[in-house]
This record gives sequence, C-alpha cells and structure tokens, in this order.
Amino acid sequence: METSRKPVLYSYFRSSCSWRVRIALALKGVAYDQAPVNLVKDGGQQLSSEFQSVNPMQQVPALKIDGITLSQSLAIIEYLEETRPDPRILPQDPKKRAQVRMISDHIASGIQPLQNLAVLQQMGEKKMEWAQRCISRGFKALEQTLQETAGRYCVGDEVSMADLCLVPQVYNAERYKVDLAPYPTIRRINKALLELEEFKTSHPSRQPDTPPELKA
Amino acid sequence: METSRKPVLYSYFRSSCSWRVRIALALKGVAYDQAPVNLVKDGGQQLSSEFQSVNPMQQVPALKIDGITLSQSLAIIEYLEETRPDPRILPQDPKKRAQVRMISDHIASGIQPLQNLAVLQQMGEKKMEWAQRCISRGFKALEQTLQETAGRYCVGDEVSMADLCLVPQVYNAERYKVDLAPYPTIRRINKALLELEEFKTSHPSRQPDTPPELKA
Repeated sequence: METSRKPVLYSYFRSSCSWRVRIALALKGVAYDQAPVNLVKDGGQQLSSEFQSVNPMQQVPALKIDGITLSQSLAIIEYLEETRPDPRILPQDPKKRAQVRMISDHIASGIQPLQNLAVLQQMGEKKMEWAQRCISRGFKALEQTLQETAGRYCVGDEVSMADLCLVPQVYNAERYKVDLAPYPTIRRINKALLELEEFKTSHPSRQPDTPPELKA
Repeated sequence: METSRKPVLYSYFRSSCSWRVRIALALKGVAYDQAPVNLVKDGGQQLSSEFQSVNPMQQVPALKIDGITLSQSLAIIEYLEETRPDPRILPQDPKKRAQVRMISDHIASGIQPLQNLAVLQQMGEKKMEWAQRCISRGFKALEQTLQETAGRYCVGDEVSMADLCLVPQVYNAERYKVDLAPYPTIRRINKALLELEEFKTSHPSRQPDTPPELKA
C-alpha cells in the first residue's frame, strides 16, 4: 500500500491501549512518528481543545494514517490487519479468529476500562483494592479460557491481536501489585512474548516520552 | 453453512450486550433458542458454577454455535459476519469498516463497561450521577464523530455493527435518565433504527424472560 505521509501515532508511554497499537505497528513493520499526549500533565493533555480536534473521544491512542484519523486500539489494529495483512495477527480459521477477538475484547472491554484512570479517581482510598479486584477477576476467567486456546501464545503458536492485549494488561497488573501466582498460563505466555523484539521496542520504558527515571 | 443444531443464546432481556447479538442474529436470519440467565435473581445466575462451565467470563451474552461457545458481543457479531456474510453489517471499504469498529468499540469499551452493574454497585449513592456522567461524556464524543460518519445510520446508509451498539446504549441512557437533548444525531439515528423489524423483535420488552409487567 502506498502512503504519501508517515502515519502519526498519538500516544502516552504508559497507556496500555497505546502499547497495543505500538506492537501492531512494529509487527507489521510500519514506520511512524509519535506525538506524545501526556495524560497526567496540565490536567490531562488529551482534554485540550487542540487534541479534541484530532480525536473527539479525547483518548489515546489515535492514529493518523492513509488520510484518516482512527481511535480505539482494536479498531486501529483491525484496520492495520486489513490494509497491511502481512504478517497476519488474526488467524485464517473463523473459529480461531473468534477466539482471538473474544480474548481481546475480554481485556479491552471487560478488564481495562474498569481499572482506567477516570474510574480509579472515583474510588478514592479503595483505588488499589478495586484495581486488583477487577484485574484478578478478569485474569481468573482468562486463565481458564487460555487453558483451552493457548499454544505458545494466547491462541495457538502464532502471535495474534490477543497477545497485543495480554502483555500491556499484565504490565498494568504489575503496576497495581496484583498477585499473578494463580495464573501460570498468563505468566508463561507473557514471558514468551516479552522475548520478542517487537514487544521490547514498543515497551513503555522505551518511548520518546518516557521520563528519564523510568527509561530502560 | 450447514449447522447440525440450532444455536443457543445465553442472554438476559435487559442486558444491552445481549441485545446487540439478538439484533445481529435477527438481521442475518439465524434461528436460535434462548437460554435466559437472570443477572439479578439468586445473587446473579451468571455466577453459578453451571453457567461458569458455559462461559468462564461469567457474563452474558454467550452463544453456542457451530460446535463452539463464544462470548463477548462484538467477537460474536464479527464471527456471525464472517460465517454468515449476507446481509453484511460491516461495509466493504476498509476505512468505513474502521469507522464502524471505532464507534462500536467507543460504546463497548468506552461507555458500557463504566455504567455496568458491577461498577454502579461500587458507587453507592452516586450511582445515577456516575452513570449519567459516563454516558453523557461518551455521547458528546459520539455525537461529534457521527456528524462526520453518519448517513441515515451511524456510518452511511447501511445498518452496521455500530448501529447494533448504539440502540442498546441509548436504551441504557434512557434507563438512567440521561438528557438526550444535546445529541440530535444520536436521537435521529436511534429513532430510524427502532423502526426496523429486527430492532423491534429483539427489544428487551419482547424477550422470553421479560417480566410480564415490562412486556410490550
């Protein structure tokens, strides 16, 4: 596919949804520029009128690509898959594709939004406890699902969209000090994925907007 | 596609995610049986060990179809689209498909999970206020997005997955008494969709588990 300009990714180093898209871009070998949006500074730069004109949803990630601006990480990843199919991150078999999407949505709709900044701010003192409970509950179900779907990775032996959701969610779990001992399959897959170059270069500790003290 | 048995939909009449799938099944003319799961009775039947063996995620909807059991409404809808493509509910153009998925994910990840039962229970007295704030904030962004993407429906003039998410979310907004006056595009599209037979028959007021006093 011919593209006249380099895509621009609006992202925040620590945003797990941004990380999903960074992995997809890396796997597909798409060169891009990053436009950092600091979710904490200035009361949240995503709320600025300048960024709102980029993405009315006032969230990262957003991707300017092929003349359009997309938001919502999974919608962006599906678009990349359809327009840059090589290497694929959705299996060919419809039932396996459904499993990949089911796991992705379980994380993207069932876990991440509940431990998102806006919700946690409402929880006051119960913040850590709430985040831990949401993630643990989601991981318990996920562990059981993965026991049926996983090979080396979440679904079989090929890296898929589900893996792009898993690793950033485990990173969040570690941030909120969730005990990962009860989830051996999640831990095994996460470890295998973090050995891949595309997961390393896209890691929150290695982004242009990563503060020096958190740089790897 | 040949199917040996009729699909079984595990659902709850009032669950907005269940309604999304009921619309998809209706649009695609798939005959199915319903297995009601009451999210309120007995402390939540979705938490029973019996249902957990159907869906480890302990959520409705879940769909038994073609020998597998799927959960997560959008993953189910994408599977139906891939295996029963006629009539299509994703446009052919990749950019328009991306817009449909972006709007769907905005509702399914960005709005609905925040006003879900489990979160609201944490909010105590602030419950209504919280639900209203989440939905209003999401609708404000959605209204702005729709002004660019909409025709008769959310994206152009064909019913798409985005519409399957919109109508149940507006139903929730009405339940939580959200003022819809600031969202004329959302209201217009919702009204046009509710005139379609498939949105009527799948409505929460017309399901096998709808309590008599709520039946239409």
